[in-house]
Amino acid sequence: MQVPLLVNDFLHRAVRLYPDKIAVVDGEQRYSYDAFGQRVNRLANALAQLGIRKGDRVGIVSPNSHFFLESFYGTSLLGAILVPINYRLKPAEHEYILEHAGVQVLLADWEHTGELDALRPQLPGVTHWIAARDEGDGDGKGEGKDHTPDGWQDWNELIQQASTAAPDTPEIDENDAVSINYTSGTTARPKGVMLTHRNCYLNAYNMIAHASLRHDDVELWTLPMFHCNGWGGVYALTAMGGTHVVLRAIDGRRIFELIERERVTFACMAPAVLRTILDFPNKNSSGNEEFRIETRPRFMVAGAPPPAAFIERLEQELGFEFIQIYGLTETAPILTVSQPDHYTDVEDWNRRSHAGVAAIGVEVRVLDDSDQPVPKDGESVGEICARSNVIFAGYWEQPEQTEAAIRNGWFHTGDLAVWDETQSIHIVDRKKDVIISGGENVSSSEIEDVLYQHPAVLECAVIGVPSEKWGETPKALVVLRSGNVPGQDEIIAHCRERMAHFKCPSSVEFVDSLPRTATGKLQKFRLRDKYWKGSERKIG
Amino acid sequence: MQVPLLVNDFLHRAVRLYPDKIAVVDGEQRYSYDAFGQRVNRLANALAQLGIRKGDRVGIVSPNSHFFLESFYGTSLLGAILVPINYRLKPAEHEYILEHAGVQVLLADWEHTGELDALRPQLPGVTHWIAARDEGDGDGKGEGKDHTPDGWQDWNELIQQASTAAPDTPEIDENDAVSINYTSGTTARPKGVMLTHRNCYLNAYNMIAHASLRHDDVELWTLPMFHCNGWGGVYALTAMGGTHVVLRAIDGRRIFELIERERVTFACMAPAVLRTILDFPNKNSSGNEEFRIETRPRFMVAGAPPPAAFIERLEQELGFEFIQIYGLTETAPILTVSQPDHYTDVEDWNRRSHAGVAAIGVEVRVLDDSDQPVPKDGESVGEICARSNVIFAGYWEQPEQTEAAIRNGWFHTGDLAVWDETQSIHIVDRKKDVIISGGENVSSSEIEDVLYQHPAVLECAVIGVPSEKWGETPKALVVLRSGNVPGQDEIIAHCRERMAHFKCPSSVEFVDSLPRTATGKLQKFRLRDKYWKGSERKIG
Repeated sequence: MQVPLLVNDFLHRAVRLYPDKIAVVDGEQRYSYDAFGQRVNRLANALAQLGIRKGDRVGIVSPNSHFFLESFYGTSLLGAILVPINYRLKPAEHEYILEHAGVQVLLADWEHTGELDALRPQLPGVTHWIAARDEGDGDGKGEGKDHTPDGWQDWNELIQQASTAAPDTPEIDENDAVSINYTSGTTARPKGVMLTHRNCYLNAYNMIAHASLRHDDVELWTLPMFHCNGWGGVYALTAMGGTHVVLRAIDGRRIFELIERERVTFACMAPAVLRTILDFPNKNSSGNEEFRIETRPRFMVAGAPPPAAFIERLEQELGFEFIQIYGLTETAPILTVSQPDHYTDVEDWNRRSHAGVAAIGVEVRVLDDSDQPVPKDGESVGEICARSNVIFAGYWEQPEQTEAAIRNGWFHTGDLAVWDETQSIHIVDRKKDVIISGGENVSSSEIEDVLYQHPAVLECAVIGVPSEKWGETPKALVVLRSGNVPGQDEIIAHCRERMAHFKCPSSVEFVDSLPRTATGKLQKFRLRDKYWKGSERKIG
Repeated sequence: MQVPLLVNDFLHRAVRLYPDKIAVVDGEQRYSYDAFGQRVNRLANALAQLGIRKGDRVGIVSPNSHFFLESFYGTSLLGAILVPINYRLKPAEHEYILEHAGVQVLLADWEHTGELDALRPQLPGVTHWIAARDEGDGDGKGEGKDHTPDGWQDWNELIQQASTAAPDTPEIDENDAVSINYTSGTTARPKGVMLTHRNCYLNAYNMIAHASLRHDDVELWTLPMFHCNGWGGVYALTAMGGTHVVLRAIDGRRIFELIERERVTFACMAPAVLRTILDFPNKNSSGNEEFRIETRPRFMVAGAPPPAAFIERLEQELGFEFIQIYGLTETAPILTVSQPDHYTDVEDWNRRSHAGVAAIGVEVRVLDDSDQPVPKDGESVGEICARSNVIFAGYWEQPEQTEAAIRNGWFHTGDLAVWDETQSIHIVDRKKDVIISGGENVSSSEIEDVLYQHPAVLECAVIGVPSEKWGETPKALVVLRSGNVPGQDEIIAHCRERMAHFKCPSSVEFVDSLPRTATGKLQKFRLRDKYWKGSERKIG
């Protein structure tokens, strides 16, 4: 028997089997799976009444919320396509995405209605504007919270008028798109990544398999849901009937409070969030502890390889468990997983920070420019390429970009890495971030790892800047811990003690902060712009 | 990107990522994944040389062995179809299956070559007879072990001449059959259940998800591999790069030895095997313990609901973990899972013995004769029906039987059950085993549960026998614990104290043993025959 693999299965299972169990905790709101399922049905029925049909696009601009979770299933039940949009983008970027994706109905968090209103004249295709807003949960601020602004339909009022009955679901193929996730724009204009039901279904199984997700798991949403559908957690955790604990914004105290109170067992995050957590005081299980944490949460990290010291601190100081994964929006996202295994000791923090090995059903190779595997020697750099059912169906209305990314049967990630005989992959840089200095490929992440070993370095980024002599040379941009004032020479000397001279930064600049995407990816192109104005950067 | 879901992925992943890790322990033999993968490649290349092509059938008659494990992948790499056959069947049954499936190459364990030789005249289609035999592993007995008999090719010699290179794999569709598993014949002539790659792939994911299979799991093969490909363990454990520990025959001491020595963490078994394990002396962690077991194995049980007392003893006395599943060969097999969850307390042994709730991607309903759901009241009996990607492609060359089983879009299991508001399913009987006495449906398993509460009852089976007055009346067949000699009246009184009179057996017969299939299913039709000769049994 063949039944389409639809992410709707996951919701149906949880609602059928665990109606009384808490599905979502969001501030003061607590929804059981039954209540959650009813809200999803109402949303789907309301969207259908607004004219949304199979294949139509519904956009959402929102931080994490129960509304956001509902929007995934409220659209997928109709065979419609959700376009989850990073709320931190600039208005021009919102406009671009909403227009490019052909969004008909726009869902927006109350805090973002104002900035979106300004786009109305340019977005005649958006026929319905719906604002998500709960009353009386005590964490509201700003006027958008008090009332639904003019020109917006109130989400709760809208769905209140719709039926809780299961919506009419059309015939959906497992290869139909379920979401279009715009890439975060590290290097270029956002592209719309079409993820299919099958992509997301199998990625959810891999998340369950490799993070050992269980029925009694409680996920704290430290990760923005717009980021590749929460790496699939929206689907995977629901499939197991686990509980979603929403976190609207990153806040160390709030995170520890929720871990304690909701007995959190699982969370996904970028390294920057992990740092926030590690830097929060009074969290240790010894000393003057403020929180009694009785669970042993598993933290799944991706977005960048974290410093090895972060992993050691998480596991040794906090007693939590660390899992590194690697993937892209285009890969639904999980490609590789790094956990203690046959070749990886628990305390091999450095190895555990690497991208790791292929997940089930994923074939990963590190290829040279002729799509031939580079030697598995831990040194030869190539591009990570993958072949799998988790790889996206293509870029929305950008077939040439799709052909450029998927060629010779392999998806080309644009990430540069080495691999070793155990097939373990270690990312050395974004393809476009490699610094080629005097003909040598220099990995900026390697330099950053060394910089992080300096006690004064809070954050850092290494970029290539123009050099008369070498063509390009590494420059370090460093955010210092407060109270620390080492000079440039001290930092460079620190590097020279630990690395070949040609790899060391030739200059250091101290900055207040580094530009990051909402998901914590460094936007190196923004750092570089300043130095390369008027020059043409030579790459590879 | 769409890539066919092929079980071959699981082997490829383990061989690529964990070449040095032990894949299989079988007596004195220990094969790394690299060595295992090489033996699989050699087997596939050898089979190709013998003319096996995509879609051809290769049979295997063998108890558990490393050869058996190899045969799964040695055939699937070629797109060929494995026919794993219960070695305990009678020669006429072997002949029927081998002929019906059109087996061209027959693989057989050394201990079974003699009985298969007798079938040669009737099986002209079997062109190659290959005997599996290791030398010098010390557990051999019987002449088949000493040398490969005439007319048989020696497995090890055959593959020694074949290449270790990956075989030429044809294009395989995920909906192509990977195995034909003949049903165990509880009620009728064996039927060939065609399982596809997709069936087995998704079942493997469900086994991983619901048994939380991990990379460091070590599975003891208490379950015959021929039984629905070890419930999918052949695939699921390999996908995670776990270790298979082969058990050739059930033996309490050997089981505890292997659990201790190999640090076993997982095993699948029928309730009869669980009883053997529970009845083995000197196993407890208190008192004069003989074994130092440092793992906490998860035992996955199916085939029949075990007495609740077994679960309690397993978890309380031994400290192991119990998981009940339910399924059929036709469902790859996992349909439902029973574990502690939101509605099931750890110590609710009775509920935990039930079939439980639907696995991911499985829709299960309990339907009446018009395919309408029976009330979820824990009392109304209906037939378990399912809709899922784990449901088989059909019976081999029996399209009418397939149509009878899959109708109105639902696979009809033939198992009768009740369900409750939490969707938890409890099997009350095989459809054909319901006793209809005076117009009342009587569940024989309910009576058996009561009988097991009597301290003298070691095993029992309740069947319907002809009755002038009631049409049919329950009869208990009981195997006593040694040393116990209660009379029929005492047993009946025990039942009457605990059940409505109409449900109680009207007669008890003490027997030495009960007929079971190799996988522990009671063959009630064999018990009934004696009483129904000359009568026509009236069923529902």
